[in-house]
Amino acid sequence: MQVAMIQDKILPMEELESVYFDRGTYFGDGVYEVVRSYNGKIFALEEHLQRFADNLAAIGIVGVDIDEIRRRLQKAFDTAGISNAKIYFHITRGSAPRDHVCDISLEPNFFLTVTELAGDKETKTKGIAVSTHPDWRWKRCDIKSLNLLPNVLARQDAAKRGCAEAILVDEAGLITEGAGSAFFAVLGQTLQTAPITCNILPSITRKFAIEAGKNIGLEIVEKSLTPQQACCADELFIAVTTKDIVPVVEFDGKLIGEGKPGKYTKLLAQEFRSFTL
Amino acid sequence: MQVAMIQDKILPMEELESVYFDRGTYFGDGVYEVVRSYNGKIFALEEHLQRFADNLAAIGIVGVDIDEIRRRLQKAFDTAGISNAKIYFHITRGSAPRDHVCDISLEPNFFLTVTELAGDKETKTKGIAVSTHPDWRWKRCDIKSLNLLPNVLARQDAAKRGCAEAILVDEAGLITEGAGSAFFAVLGQTLQTAPITCNILPSITRKFAIEAGKNIGLEIVEKSLTPQQACCADELFIAVTTKDIVPVVEFDGKLIGEGKPGKYTKLLAQEFRSFTL
Repeated sequence: MQVAMIQDKILPMEELESVYFDRGTYFGDGVYEVVRSYNGKIFALEEHLQRFADNLAAIGIVGVDIDEIRRRLQKAFDTAGISNAKIYFHITRGSAPRDHVCDISLEPNFFLTVTELAGDKETKTKGIAVSTHPDWRWKRCDIKSLNLLPNVLARQDAAKRGCAEAILVDEAGLITEGAGSAFFAVLGQTLQTAPITCNILPSITRKFAIEAGKNIGLEIVEKSLTPQQACCADELFIAVTTKDIVPVVEFDGKLIGEGKPGKYTKLLAQEFRSFTL
Repeated sequence: MQVAMIQDKILPMEELESVYFDRGTYFGDGVYEVVRSYNGKIFALEEHLQRFADNLAAIGIVGVDIDEIRRRLQKAFDTAGISNAKIYFHITRGSAPRDHVCDISLEPNFFLTVTELAGDKETKTKGIAVSTHPDWRWKRCDIKSLNLLPNVLARQDAAKRGCAEAILVDEAGLITEGAGSAFFAVLGQTLQTAPITCNILPSITRKFAIEAGKNIGLEIVEKSLTPQQACCADELFIAVTTKDIVPVVEFDGKLIGEGKPGKYTKLLAQEFRSFTL
C-alpha cells in the first residue's frame, strides 16, 4: 500500500488531499505577484498582470486566462474591503505525484490572499539599515518564481544584523538588487540602479521610481554599483511594491548622508505617491 | 476582513488550513531526501539522514530530531510493505503568514511518501538518451533544497527532445551534473565525474558509483567534462538513488560507444548491486 505521512500521522496515499501534491511545494514550480492598494485603489494592476502572464509563459504554464485572474483578484479585494491591502497571488503548475516532468494538461493551482498592510510611517520617516549578502539566486531572476530560498537566507542574515533588507552582490562584486526590492543610489543629480538583465527582476516599482526620478529632474543611469560606491552615495533607497520608496540610511554599518532620508528620496516618494492617487 | 482564495473559492483567512501557509510553497524553504529499498532493505539510509541533517543546518532549520525522522521513515516503510520502494521526504521551515523572515520557534513541517518503484529493466538494458541544458540553478547546489524550478525546466526541455535526463552545463561550458542525477564518463580505464563543489550535490549514489569504480579497477578522476569531451567518451552513465547506475547511450543526439550500454557501465551496475544486498 502506498502511504503518505504528515508530521507523525500515516495515511493511505489515496486519502492525501491534492494540496499535498502541489508542484509549488515539491519544486517551487510556479510564479507569483504582489500588488497593493492605496486608499481602496489597486496600483499598477495591469502591469503586474502582464508580468504574471509573461512569467507563466516563461516557465511554460499554459491555459491560464488572465481575465479570469483579474476577476478573481477584484472579487477577493472587494470581499476583503481593506483600503490599504496587500494582495499576494501565485499559480503553480498543478498537483500530481512528484515527478520533474508532468502532463501539460495538468490543471494549474491558483492561490491568493488579501491582507492589511502594516503602517510604514516610521520606516519612511527614519529609513532603514541594509546589509550585503552574496547573490546566491538562480540565473533567471527575471522570472518571479516561487524559488525564493536564497532570498529567505539573505533576508534572515540581514535580520540577524539588525537590518531590514539584504542587498545582493554578484560574483563580479556588483549589486544586483535587494532580496525583495530594487536598489537605488542618488549621486549628485543622478539616480543610479542596475540595468535589467536575466539577473534582475523587471520590477514595476523600479519602473515607477525611474519615472518619478525623471519627473523631478534627475538624470537616470542604469549601471550596477559596487558596495563601495553605494557606501559613498549621497542617498540610497529601495523600491518595493508594498512600501514604494523606502530610504536607506545605513549600508553595511556605514551611515549614508547624515543617517537621515535624503532630500531627493523624499521628493521621489512624494512624486511616486502622486502616481497612486 | 482578511481573505484567501483557492482556485475560485473565497474564504476568511482564519479558515485557511495551515498547509496553505507552508513556507515550502511560498519560498521552497525546505530540504528533501529520496531513499529507496532493494528487496525490503533501505539502502544507505544513514548517509541520507546525515545529509538531511547537514542540509537542515545549512539553511538554519533547527530543532529537528533525526532519530525521530528515522523512526517515522521506518514506520511508514513498514506500514507500506513495499519491497522496492521509493521514500521521499521533506521538511520545511513551517507554516506562517508569508514573510521572508520568520520566528525561529516555528514548528517545521514533515512530509513523506512511500511509493512503488517502477521497473527499470528496459532503461538499464537499453540505456537512455540525454540532452544538455544551461545550468540555471542557484549558487548552493550542495544544499538539496525544494528550489527545483531550474531542474524542472531543464528536464522538461529534455523530455521535449525525447531525452530522459538533462545534463547541466555551467557558464564556463563545463558539465556540472544531471538535473536529477550525477553524471559519469568512462574514458579508457578512467572513470571521470565533476568534483564536489558548491555547484554540485554531494550525491550519495555518486559516492557508491566511485566506490564501485575503484573495486573494478578503474582510475577515478574528479574533473569536470565539457559536452564535447562527453560526446567522445567510451561510455557514459548517470547515477541516481532510485535507479542507481543508468547507461547513457545518446548524448545531444550523438551515439555513445555503439549506442549500447558499455562493458564498464555494466560491471559498475553489477558491483553497485552487490552493495545493496
